[in-house]
Amino acid sequence: PRMKLVLVDHNEFAQAVAGADEAEIIEVIDHHRLSGNLRTKEPIRFINEPVGSTSTIVGIMYRMREAAPDKSTAICLCAGIISDTLHLTSPTTTSTDKEILEWLAGIGGIDSAQFVKDFFAAGSMLREHTPDRALESDRKVFEENGWHISISQIEELGLEEFWKRETELQGALQALLTKHSLHFACLMVTDITRHHSVLLVAGDQRVIDAIDYPQAKEHVYDMAGVVSRKKQLFPYMSHVVTKLDAP
Amino acid sequence: PRMKLVLVDHNEFAQAVAGADEAEIIEVIDHHRLSGNLRTKEPIRFINEPVGSTSTIVGIMYRMREAAPDKSTAICLCAGIISDTLHLTSPTTTSTDKEILEWLAGIGGIDSAQFVKDFFAAGSMLREHTPDRALESDRKVFEENGWHISISQIEELGLEEFWKRETELQGALQALLTKHSLHFACLMVTDITRHHSVLLVAGDQRVIDAIDYPQAKEHVYDMAGVVSRKKQLFPYMSHVVTKLDAP
Repeated sequence: PRMKLVLVDHNEFAQAVAGADEAEIIEVIDHHRLSGNLRTKEPIRFINEPVGSTSTIVGIMYRMREAAPDKSTAICLCAGIISDTLHLTSPTTTSTDKEILEWLAGIGGIDSAQFVKDFFAAGSMLREHTPDRALESDRKVFEENGWHISISQIEELGLEEFWKRETELQGALQALLTKHSLHFACLMVTDITRHHSVLLVAGDQRVIDAIDYPQAKEHVYDMAGVVSRKKQLFPYMSHVVTKLDAP
Repeated sequence: PRMKLVLVDHNEFAQAVAGADEAEIIEVIDHHRLSGNLRTKEPIRFINEPVGSTSTIVGIMYRMREAAPDKSTAICLCAGIISDTLHLTSPTTTSTDKEILEWLAGIGGIDSAQFVKDFFAAGSMLREHTPDRALESDRKVFEENGWHISISQIEELGLEEFWKRETELQGALQALLTKHSLHFACLMVTDITRHHSVLLVAGDQRVIDAIDYPQAKEHVYDMAGVVSRKKQLFPYMSHVVTKLDAP
């Protein structure tokens, strides 16, 4: 019998575990764009709500059943919402995220302000890990119009660590291109204290030439106010490669 | 700007209004299999719950918001659930359908038993309409493995009217094949008093030969216990044409 899988926080095979396209997908809980990858013979549960965090949807599902998570689960879900929405400040945030976070913080017995401070101070991915590891920590791949594109995202308190390691990160992006046969790969480093991101790019020159954000230096672009890969950078890159010929 | 559409009770373009594939789909509320037809650049709400009726999902959504429909809306939703689930007896019925129907019947102030009796006695599609019109009253098209297939469904109190009109209905099915360039078309007539259906078929002989339900007469098959197009007949036909070569 085929392996049964529930996809959580994604609904495309390019982002799923290897072999997912051969498994039986029995449920999906997500808040990303629809991939069109899933075709079933019988109805399955597919819940996609355009809220800031899949943890919010999990919270909604508890409430629908007039149930509540235990304390430690509630704290995990709080961390998910806070991380995904940059504590309710990202453009993906909805009033539902606020409401569910408040409810879960009550169950978790956490002081939200202190928790947020501790959460975001918990260390710099760029300082504490190798460039390879940092690029892989939150990386998504998509295919559009024949283009295979990778977008990594890192959140930091300030951009100092990024500028210190920019050359090494560029090298790691180049290695990523070869390793995964990609046409284009980029790293979005978001400064959560200023709600500002920089984009480090590598790969096909046609894609790079089509990026019209202000250039900070070769292969680095400034994206003022951009913090969401899903709602801002992904639709932008998708738009860019839709206008280009297939690679 | 493109027309904006919400798809309700379906998620495939073959079942949507003409031109839906050029519109912007902004929301989907459904309980059918996933078509894989929908690909978006940004997240949208896509709610698919494997319950007996999309009206049940609408009821769930009211309850989630701690709101309630007005009386006439509640009665319409009751009729939807009763019709889709053959008053909670179809194999697609879930405990959620039961719970939501009870809640809505309270708001609608209806006596469920009497309402069901009146509802199903409200007239015979086969007696009151032309064969053409009867075939079109609830007809769905799907494409699988290159095969274009149409399935009409009619619910009746008894099968007398079907047997009286079988020859005319066979003629109307043949006309449907030509008109819509289909490979195969069928009509499922469900006797809701006995939970039994008959299937009238027309089209490609390879499909007809692959049907292994007991034959009642030429072009008519007996399907004991089969009442759901979505959960029983659709997966069956899908299985049949998957095993065949493309037409």
